[in-house]
Amino acid sequence: MSAAAAPARKKQTNYPEPFASRMNGRQKRPLGDLFGLKSFGVNLTRLSPGGESALFHRHSRQDEFIYILEGQPTLITDDAETLLGPGSCAGFPAGGTAHQLVNRSGADVVYLEVGDRTPGDEGSYPRDDIQAALGPDGRWLFTHKDGTPY
Amino acid sequence: MSAAAAPARKKQTNYPEPFASRMNGRQKRPLGDLFGLKSFGVNLTRLSPGGESALFHRHSRQDEFIYILEGQPTLITDDAETLLGPGSCAGFPAGGTAHQLVNRSGADVVYLEVGDRTPGDEGSYPRDDIQAALGPDGRWLFTHKDGTPY
Repeated sequence: MSAAAAPARKKQTNYPEPFASRMNGRQKRPLGDLFGLKSFGVNLTRLSPGGESALFHRHSRQDEFIYILEGQPTLITDDAETLLGPGSCAGFPAGGTAHQLVNRSGADVVYLEVGDRTPGDEGSYPRDDIQAALGPDGRWLFTHKDGTPY
Repeated sequence: MSAAAAPARKKQTNYPEPFASRMNGRQKRPLGDLFGLKSFGVNLTRLSPGGESALFHRHSRQDEFIYILEGQPTLITDDAETLLGPGSCAGFPAGGTAHQLVNRSGADVVYLEVGDRTPGDEGSYPRDDIQAALGPDGRWLFTHKDGTPY
C-alpha cells in the first residue's frame, strides 16, 4: 500500500501539557500496525516547520532508527547538532545518547521511524521535568521526575 | 550518515547452492548494525533487474517490513502478485503469508527492509526444498525439508 495514504494517528501525543502542545507540528502515520506487526512499530512521520519529533529523550531498553525521506531536519544528540537530509539515517540504541529531530527549515520533513516494543522500557528526558514508564498494557505512564503524576 | 554510503555486506547470502546464486542480483547495506541496534535489523537493499529479495518464505516468529525507495519490484505473496513503487510499503507478520520481492523491471529497485531478532525463529520455503532454523548463536542453519544437511 501507499505509505502516504495510511491513516494518520488521531491522538497526536500522549505527553501531558505543557509538552503535548509542542507536538502540534508532528503527524504520525502508523505503518507496521496496519499489517499486524507486533515486534516493532514503523511510522511515516511528517514535521511541519518548527515541529519536533519528540522531546529530547532516550529509551532504557528499546532501540530506535530513523531514515529521512524528505526535507532537512536537525538531529540533536547529547554532544552535537547535525543537519540531515533525504537518504540520511540514524540509529539510537537503548541507553545511548538522548536524541530529537527538530525542523528548523521552512519546508516539511518526512521520515520513517522504527522502534521495537521491548517490555519494561523507560523514557528519560534530560531537558524536561518528565519521565515515562511503559506499563504492562503497553501504555506510557508519564510523571514528574519526583514521581508525582501529571 | 548517508545510508547509501554504508558498507555493503561482503557475503551476499548464507543460502546453500543452488539457491545462493539466485541472490547474485541483491546487495544489502546493513544500517541498524552500524549504530549498535540489537532488537531489529534494517538494511538498505538494491535489486538489479532480475534480482530477488530472498527465496519465497515466511518466518515463524519474526516480523518483517519493507518500504520501497526506488524502482518497481513485484511483491509475490501466497495469493497475489502486486507491482509496488516508491512510497509503497508492506508488512509480513510472523506466521503470515510467504513473500518475496522480484525485480522484473529494467531498472534497479532500492528498498528498506526491517526485521526483528526474536530467538527461535524458523524460515519456511513453500516453493523450494530448504528450511531454516535460527541457532542460539544467531546464525541460520539450512537443511533439506527432510532434515538432511546441505
